[in-house]
Amino acid sequence: MNIKIVGNYVGKALIIEAAFMLPALIIALSLGETSSAFAFLYTIIAAAAVGVLFISLKSKEEMVYSREGFVIVSITWIVLSLVGAIPFCISKAIPNYLNSVFETVSGFTTTGASILNNVEILPKSILYWRSFTNWLGGMGVIMFLLAIVPDIKDSGTIRMMKAESPGPVVGKLVPKLKRTAIILYEIYIALTLLETILLLAGGVPFFDSLCIALSNAGTGGFSIKNASIGFYNDYVQIVVGIFMLLFGVNFNVFYLILLKRFKQAIRSEEFRVYCGIVIFSTALITINTMNLFANIGEGLKHSFFQVATIISTTGFATTDFNLWPEFSKCLMVLLMLIGACAGSTAGGTKIARTLILIKSFKNTIQKLIHPRSVKIIKIDGEKTEENSVKEVHAYFTAYVLIFAVSILAVSFDNFGFDTTITSVAATLNNIGPGLGAIGPTGNYAGFSAFSKIVLILDMLIGRLEIFPVLMLAAPSIWKRQK
Amino acid sequence: MNIKIVGNYVGKALIIEAAFMLPALIIALSLGETSSAFAFLYTIIAAAAVGVLFISLKSKEEMVYSREGFVIVSITWIVLSLVGAIPFCISKAIPNYLNSVFETVSGFTTTGASILNNVEILPKSILYWRSFTNWLGGMGVIMFLLAIVPDIKDSGTIRMMKAESPGPVVGKLVPKLKRTAIILYEIYIALTLLETILLLAGGVPFFDSLCIALSNAGTGGFSIKNASIGFYNDYVQIVVGIFMLLFGVNFNVFYLILLKRFKQAIRSEEFRVYCGIVIFSTALITINTMNLFANIGEGLKHSFFQVATIISTTGFATTDFNLWPEFSKCLMVLLMLIGACAGSTAGGTKIARTLILIKSFKNTIQKLIHPRSVKIIKIDGEKTEENSVKEVHAYFTAYVLIFAVSILAVSFDNFGFDTTITSVAATLNNIGPGLGAIGPTGNYAGFSAFSKIVLILDMLIGRLEIFPVLMLAAPSIWKRQK
Repeated sequence: MNIKIVGNYVGKALIIEAAFMLPALIIALSLGETSSAFAFLYTIIAAAAVGVLFISLKSKEEMVYSREGFVIVSITWIVLSLVGAIPFCISKAIPNYLNSVFETVSGFTTTGASILNNVEILPKSILYWRSFTNWLGGMGVIMFLLAIVPDIKDSGTIRMMKAESPGPVVGKLVPKLKRTAIILYEIYIALTLLETILLLAGGVPFFDSLCIALSNAGTGGFSIKNASIGFYNDYVQIVVGIFMLLFGVNFNVFYLILLKRFKQAIRSEEFRVYCGIVIFSTALITINTMNLFANIGEGLKHSFFQVATIISTTGFATTDFNLWPEFSKCLMVLLMLIGACAGSTAGGTKIARTLILIKSFKNTIQKLIHPRSVKIIKIDGEKTEENSVKEVHAYFTAYVLIFAVSILAVSFDNFGFDTTITSVAATLNNIGPGLGAIGPTGNYAGFSAFSKIVLILDMLIGRLEIFPVLMLAAPSIWKRQK
Repeated sequence: MNIKIVGNYVGKALIIEAAFMLPALIIALSLGETSSAFAFLYTIIAAAAVGVLFISLKSKEEMVYSREGFVIVSITWIVLSLVGAIPFCISKAIPNYLNSVFETVSGFTTTGASILNNVEILPKSILYWRSFTNWLGGMGVIMFLLAIVPDIKDSGTIRMMKAESPGPVVGKLVPKLKRTAIILYEIYIALTLLETILLLAGGVPFFDSLCIALSNAGTGGFSIKNASIGFYNDYVQIVVGIFMLLFGVNFNVFYLILLKRFKQAIRSEEFRVYCGIVIFSTALITINTMNLFANIGEGLKHSFFQVATIISTTGFATTDFNLWPEFSKCLMVLLMLIGACAGSTAGGTKIARTLILIKSFKNTIQKLIHPRSVKIIKIDGEKTEENSVKEVHAYFTAYVLIFAVSILAVSFDNFGFDTTITSVAATLNNIGPGLGAIGPTGNYAGFSAFSKIVLILDMLIGRLEIFPVLMLAAPSIWKRQK
């Protein structure tokens, strides 16, 4: 392990974080929010200073190997969360540091699980920073680094990109990785601006529009109102619902649309399955919850919003699905586990992985029936590498094991079966709300410190898709390089 | 598909079933249980007649191909269940035929989930038959057929054995399959007799001893008392607890012990992990439930029994673990999913599969860290075939999908989250009791007919380990043979 090269990247990421805190500082200063202004100021200075120090640790060897790639990404995410939590803590918005870290990890990992009872009493600068963590975490800080830092070489960076971007295979839009990162951020910023404008057009104040769009783009789900999106009118709910689904789409599809290759965009198997699941689930839930709403339109609106918020792993709320019939609740839990498309900002296990799993399953069954048949797994007409299939299987194995261990750990808190299970499902899949005590109207404040640490780890493991975080625990990764 | 050869095997199995009903008929006659005597008599005559008819369908081609093997096993199990249910229904012990089928499938699949509120009012002949279904299902009727029918050829029968015996790879004890089947049944009968004698020695009446031993051997868990094994004294509870664990051990281990190859027996990785899980879980639950019992001995006894009953997927009860703290309950649910050893009479996904899954996962992680490393998966020092690994992955994929669909189906009944989830877990893994309404003191009577059918399918799918039952739904299996 080349520690210096890891330090170098962490340093760069810290400086970016400090820079991204400047708008929050400006908001605090302009609104006279003194304690948060100082909180941001101190953090910015400290982060920048440590960042510069780390960058000065120049390594002779500049090559990023596979294992460094994974370590860089996970260490960066952990450090950014620990630093990003400081303003919450020293501004006394969230006086307890563990709670601040929980909130920040929840932000960066785009989970949106909160320990706050009342967000409306928080200073605006703090609310802005909270929503912004969702945005930065959505596309990823390493991806941002690749896009703006001039001296990063292509060799090795693919490892980091793979470690940070969601999905079983990393999608290069263009041959050069740096250019890919830039295009992805351009699309991301454009969509965020578009949503902000649409919300403004609906009469939502600028600050609210911006914060909603930031949280929405990252499929994070932090809200600046206690009633979440339920605070706003139907127009806002529908705009947000549509944008939640959009940010759950593989950004490759948007890129193809930009290139006017519409047919190819629509041909994506994952995209079609995603649309199918959304339509089908919305229909089933609308029927199942029919007698809870005044009319079918109202039911459809709520069902659509809730399906969109869960499958895109955003976690905004407009109604309390805890009160729905068991079937709808169970369906919501399954949607939690599936998540949206690879290469989007959404969490969950991703539809692409489920597709590979099912195709691999079909192959094996065919081989049992016709032992001499040989078949390969194709997605969108292209052969999936045997290694990718193995990684998908390894991913699900680890996913189930982590799920199981986390449930046991959280169960010490003696909440009910639904709360225990969905607290893990909602954090490991970066969603936010679950059932029971952590339903859309509840929050995570009631958990013990031990459970909070477990859930913090689950959020990180979920966002970085298991392997990078797990590898920190593998002894062979820390051995000296030969 | 060669329908005639399938019919031939089903016919043979029906005659065996008719023969196995004779003891129940004798019990009914000797105790003057008129209505059940007639019920058994009619069923025996009908089953034997249909059996003879089916056997007369001689096929020119005698070869059993892969796909026929799977179809023979699943069709046989379904037909035996439908016929085995008849005595319950026409004797009016269980007046409703669907409920009778539920009870019989639950018996043959060694689930032990019951729709009965009060078993103590049932005629003894019915109770005997109910317990006997557990015994026959444990080792399997096809295995019995292989052991006794003289004209079955080795070629092709390996497929049927594979389809019926639990675990990722079929364990041939000796080169000849027929001899293997005989040895397995010999060990099975010997252990059943040993348990009966030990129970008799503890003062349990002969009828009770026999029924307990039959249900126990198959890891079924049907009981002839409403309080299950809680009805009997500590001695009985400890004997039954130990035998539940024994019947969860791979029978290869017993065979090695018979051959006095003790070292090799103990070297089995799966056996060691099994022992480890039992000891570890018992310890954790004893600590976690400490303040529920009068003293540590009492707590240890109950924890041991409940761990043994769940991991061996038997389902006997001595206490209501529904009242335990959340941690113990969650641990029990995880034990449900794991199950015991391959090649035992237990249900669940089997420790062998989990071992293969974890080893395959470790390999993939090693390859991510050191991309050029090549490793193979070894169990007990022997290489696991790539195809077996793929089948294990396919198994878990199907398992999760079936679990998910079943939960959605059962959720229409609007029981709580714990009942819904564990009803599927407890049937798909052939355990019996779950949490909530189907806890150790509850039963499955409250489910709708639709849910009962879903759970019946889950029990069959679980016992036959998914593929044989799934294949009935594959169109390509029904195509004419080339």
